[in-house]
Parts: sequence; C-alpha cells; structure tokens
Amino acid sequence: MSSKIESILDNLKAIKGVHGSALIERFGLIKGQALPGWIDPESLAAMVTLILKASQRATKELEQGEFLDAIIESKNGKILFTEIKGNVLAVLTTVEAKLGIINLKLEAAKKSLAAEL
Amino acid sequence: MSSKIESILDNLKAIKGVHGSALIERFGLIKGQALPGWIDPESLAAMVTLILKASQRATKELEQGEFLDAIIESKNGKILFTEIKGNVLAVLTTVEAKLGIINLKLEAAKKSLAAEL
Repeated sequence: MSSKIESILDNLKAIKGVHGSALIERFGLIKGQALPGWIDPESLAAMVTLILKASQRATKELEQGEFLDAIIESKNGKILFTEIKGNVLAVLTTVEAKLGIINLKLEAAKKSLAAEL
Repeated sequence: MSSKIESILDNLKAIKGVHGSALIERFGLIKGQALPGWIDPESLAAMVTLILKASQRATKELEQGEFLDAIIESKNGKILFTEIKGNVLAVLTTVEAKLGIINLKLEAAKKSLAAEL
C-alpha cells in the first residue's frame, strides 16, 4: 500500500462529517484505506463491486455510458463512490455532512490519487 | 397496474431533463412505468435489486440504517432511486438535468405514490 495514498485518505478523514474513506480496485482489492474501526473494509469493497455491477448494467442496457460516481443515502449516513482510473474511492459520511464542501475537497483528492495510480 | 400510478409517472416524465421513471417493487416486480422505448424496464428492475443489495450490505455491516435514496451518475445521464413503502422509484435523467428542481417535484410525486401503495 502506498503511504502517499494513505496520507491523502487520512486528509479526507479530517473533513467535518467524513467518517473515513477507502480506495478500492474494480474487482474488490483494497488499495488504501483510512476507515474507523467499526467499518469493515471488506464489506465496503463488496459494496463497491455491487455498485459497479449495477452501473455496468446501466452502461450496457440503458445507454448510460461509463460510470462516474454514485451516492447511497441511508438513515444513518451517506456513502459516496467516485471512479478514479478504474478504481473506486468510497467515502462514508454522516447524515448532516455538507456535500458541497466535501465534493470540492474530493475533487482535489481525486487529482492527487490519480497521480499515484 | 394502477392507472393513478401511471399518471403520476407520466407527469414526472414531463419534467425537463427526465427521460422517464418506473416504480419497482423490492424484489424486481414492475408496478408502473413511464419509460422511453429505448429503456428496457426489466434491466432497470435488475439494477434496482442490485442497488438494494448494496444498500442492505451497508445497513447490516456498515451501520448505515435503512435505505433512503441513491444516485448513479454516468457519462450519459443520472439514475435516481428513492424508497417508497418498500418499493423503489427509479428516475432516469439527462446529464444536464437540474437535480434541485427534479428533487422538489420528486418529493410531491413520492407523496402521491405513497398514497396509492
């Protein structure tokens, strides 16, 4: 695991409302993570592959084109998924998290991560 | 299929940037739809079950609680998913669609649909 990737993910974790994040390869391999102890990285990786399966269907059968990102909103929080060079960055947030601010910082993190991949 | 449900979905389709929508039961049964011809309702239903699977994992293993809604953004458009009494309303939009306006009208449609279920 690249320590540069980990430090970018650590920085994301410091944003208000962000529980943590992980960078997951298309087939479920975890490339880096900065997650709180109560989150199982393997479960998050399994979710990423399901989301990508759903979006692959969208691409093929609903003419949606390449996957860019996704948000799943549940009662206790949000999970953001963003594509970076064939990998997916998953970010877990609280319910109250301000997506505008998080998305701005996410864009910067995406660029830094893309440079490491 | 209730004609009331269909007419609510027809109204959603009239919103600028919305290709169409469908109301899909938790296990993939299509309860109503107003989709353009190039969208296969069965493919959309299959996506809904995948999204729900992903969110069920989130509920169980990531302590996210009940599923509320999701957005998948791809190169050619967005798909919005919203929970309504154990069913999922899926809405397909163009890339340029303004989510603020659509979400407002979606809230009203959700209330009307909930009354029919």
